[in-house]
Amino acid sequence: MKARVHVYLKPGVLDPQGQAVANSLKHLGFDEVGAARQGKLIEIDLNTADAELAQKRVAEMCDKLLANPVIETYDIELSA
Amino acid sequence: MKARVHVYLKPGVLDPQGQAVANSLKHLGFDEVGAARQGKLIEIDLNTADAELAQKRVAEMCDKLLANPVIETYDIELSA
Repeated sequence: MKARVHVYLKPGVLDPQGQAVANSLKHLGFDEVGAARQGKLIEIDLNTADAELAQKRVAEMCDKLLANPVIETYDIELSA
Repeated sequence: MKARVHVYLKPGVLDPQGQAVANSLKHLGFDEVGAARQGKLIEIDLNTADAELAQKRVAEMCDKLLANPVIETYDIELSA
């Protein structure tokens, strides 16, 4: 199965990359843009069919490698 | 409304960052990991309520700034 992990900065953590995106979009004439935030998207192919186990293992991967728990948060989407 | 943009590398484009993630996960003992790919996640707050217009404008933002159409592809999710 496939896991799609979104890693975000926690609310309140300064996000200069997101601010740069928002400013650049406004500069380009996209006046409807308010704030923007940038995060990471990681897609992982897993050799397992057990969704419950996969969810647990991917959460472990996030805690150990993919996200920095001090400043980042994540969510996991699994698909067959 | 809010737009969530996923930017991926196109299939076939070399993804060293994703390979590094896959290798590191295997090193950490996550043997079920096959391949991994890394992309960008951008969340944008929009001062508009028209979903159809928003979809069009965000696609324009992707083409102009957020994605490199030569090597990247994107999808857009809108939420209220």
